[in-house]
Amino acid sequence: MPTLVMKFGGTSVANLDRIRRAAKRIGVEVAKGYDVIVIVSAMSGKTNEMVGWVNETSPLYDAREYDAVVSSGENVTAGLMALTLQEMDVPARSWQGWQVPLLTTSAHSQARIEEIPTKNINEKFAEGMKVAVVAGFQGISPEGRITTLGRGGSDTTAVAFAAAFEADRCDIYTDVDGVYTTDPRICDKARKLDKISFEEMLELASLGAKVLQTRSVELAMRYKVKLRVLSSFEEQSDEAGTLVCDEEEIMESNVVAGVAYSRDEAKMTLLSVADRPGIAATIFNALSDGGVNVDMIVQNISEEGRTDMTFSCPTDQVARAEKSLLAIKDAGELNYAELIADTDVAKVSVVGIGMRSQSGVAAKMFKVLSDEGINIKVITTSEIKISVLIDRKYMELAVQALHDAFELDKAA
Amino acid sequence: MPTLVMKFGGTSVANLDRIRRAAKRIGVEVAKGYDVIVIVSAMSGKTNEMVGWVNETSPLYDAREYDAVVSSGENVTAGLMALTLQEMDVPARSWQGWQVPLLTTSAHSQARIEEIPTKNINEKFAEGMKVAVVAGFQGISPEGRITTLGRGGSDTTAVAFAAAFEADRCDIYTDVDGVYTTDPRICDKARKLDKISFEEMLELASLGAKVLQTRSVELAMRYKVKLRVLSSFEEQSDEAGTLVCDEEEIMESNVVAGVAYSRDEAKMTLLSVADRPGIAATIFNALSDGGVNVDMIVQNISEEGRTDMTFSCPTDQVARAEKSLLAIKDAGELNYAELIADTDVAKVSVVGIGMRSQSGVAAKMFKVLSDEGINIKVITTSEIKISVLIDRKYMELAVQALHDAFELDKAA
Repeated sequence: MPTLVMKFGGTSVANLDRIRRAAKRIGVEVAKGYDVIVIVSAMSGKTNEMVGWVNETSPLYDAREYDAVVSSGENVTAGLMALTLQEMDVPARSWQGWQVPLLTTSAHSQARIEEIPTKNINEKFAEGMKVAVVAGFQGISPEGRITTLGRGGSDTTAVAFAAAFEADRCDIYTDVDGVYTTDPRICDKARKLDKISFEEMLELASLGAKVLQTRSVELAMRYKVKLRVLSSFEEQSDEAGTLVCDEEEIMESNVVAGVAYSRDEAKMTLLSVADRPGIAATIFNALSDGGVNVDMIVQNISEEGRTDMTFSCPTDQVARAEKSLLAIKDAGELNYAELIADTDVAKVSVVGIGMRSQSGVAAKMFKVLSDEGINIKVITTSEIKISVLIDRKYMELAVQALHDAFELDKAA
Repeated sequence: MPTLVMKFGGTSVANLDRIRRAAKRIGVEVAKGYDVIVIVSAMSGKTNEMVGWVNETSPLYDAREYDAVVSSGENVTAGLMALTLQEMDVPARSWQGWQVPLLTTSAHSQARIEEIPTKNINEKFAEGMKVAVVAGFQGISPEGRITTLGRGGSDTTAVAFAAAFEADRCDIYTDVDGVYTTDPRICDKARKLDKISFEEMLELASLGAKVLQTRSVELAMRYKVKLRVLSSFEEQSDEAGTLVCDEEEIMESNVVAGVAYSRDEAKMTLLSVADRPGIAATIFNALSDGGVNVDMIVQNISEEGRTDMTFSCPTDQVARAEKSLLAIKDAGELNYAELIADTDVAKVSVVGIGMRSQSGVAAKMFKVLSDEGINIKVITTSEIKISVLIDRKYMELAVQALHDAFELDKAA
């Protein structure tokens, strides 16, 4: 029997009505002859509520207990979904992570999936079960304790199941109807893409287009899982939503696939750092140990043995970054004149696999921003992406101007 | 190391403040040198919320999915309690039913405990864990699915753990400070008992004094578990609350230990039933099959081969009883003239092991009620209990008059 994985996020199972709506959609796929594995998130708001309780109880919490608490929301949805399907005469049962079992590392609250044995679920499919409803986001460690996969981890659960069960497709039902050329909330010309490559989706996801957890896209790329993003709030056909797939499956595409942005960026500059070998390692090791996720890094030209070092990180990690750097300064490991934090910046990026074969994209991007009078503070590039830091007040303007300039409102 | 079991009900862990309060109480026992097993309920209201969702989703639900859903509240409390204890530097971890494992029958939603292997938890005690926080109410079936023990099942979990780990005592923390001679809400002379026998507690529990789940008292009696009921809202000493124990441990006691009542009773009378062998079996089998919990049964003297049959059941089961009896009448298995349902009755009972050795308790009870002008509709007796059905409007008067007459406001 062909297998399909369908994942429903928190807003798609927010209440009993929405669970019924999702169940109907599942019924359609069962009627087509699929054995279906459904991955469910917690009802929207539930996980946040529990994370709040844990943080209030214990700011430096034991991650094993955090996982035991915050994984419970998915169990509720899984049971309710199984009951709803049974009411529609679809043979279904719920599975918690430890029942599958979904085996993970012991890295609690950010565990990685090690293996998904298919035996238990396949036995039930053989007995006539048509839908296995699996609680997303959770697994079990080698020590027999509950683990979770990090926020958004249900996407990763879904892709991992699709890989393990060699599913025809992994459909991610969410509150948007696909992947857009940019955020429709800030650019009304944003256009839904029918297809996007794994590589582009990875860059867009990591750049703040929060449709899919980054890890789920990596996993789908590695195991060649056909990933589809579509809305649980609309009637769906087989061609709905956006298919995330190998670039070979995309015949024609624009040079630039999308414009992404990230609002909560901070630009940190260390003035007058001694420019000697190993100094960058000292700085970024300290930041990493302090839990700071450094994104862009720029080093200015050295003058008289001293240089300025600039990096960006999320706004809410500025205090941690300052603390980490002050600590190594006090310890005599680093010398700098001043640390300047600019928390009024945003990151805007253009992404597209077409850049590999077509030059001039960066030049065009810089000209567009310049024509709008927007000053570029930091630039980084990868093979398929160009990102700039700019003043936050220009962010929406920059996104709209770039979307226009690269004609993203028109299909290739 | 001596072991203590402490159980905290839903109101005792209703929010983070109350969980902290309970954790402090646990810390006191740890400081005395106990290894402590803590059994927690769901935060008050959570289980009801989930039961509501299940019922709305599927009126005739799959009990396996019901259990998977409604057991999740306890997992949240167990994790939060472990974190709270850790914050107080008390080494603690949470245990879900399947992790212990608490092995039960497959009778979902009303499973019975088969065994509690002590190995896993004892290993952690040996490694220095001081408190095992166990999610109450839940276990695991031989098929590896989650089971629950029925409403109030956390009491039973607690007593079973006390038996398995040979605990010195099982303390049940609740929102009342002990077992009273009657309900203080309807009789202001009600007095807290320092000790009560298992037998008396069983009768009081089954008569609607909802301090402890009946099964937990049965289990405590069988395994000689010292059971203490006390308030989580007051500072506690070792002598606080009410000790439920063997009657041998109670030196002196009143003839009557308490007066119990049950408001939601209905009296059902079948008029003019053919009085032939097997007719009672026919009637009560049908009621049992229909899910009616029959309590008292009275058969009048037979006249001319016909008799009246009276029984009582909870008010909310009257419709079911009527349906069941009509079905066997229609099937020709039973003939009766009329079925009269009186839903305006209540049950009042006096309970006491002293009755075994002292006669005249029934006579005194009937005289007290008669003096108050209260008509008795049905009477049943056991070795240590006398129950009567009366008009509901006299219920509080009856309880107060009996409490006075048997001088329950005075200690023995």
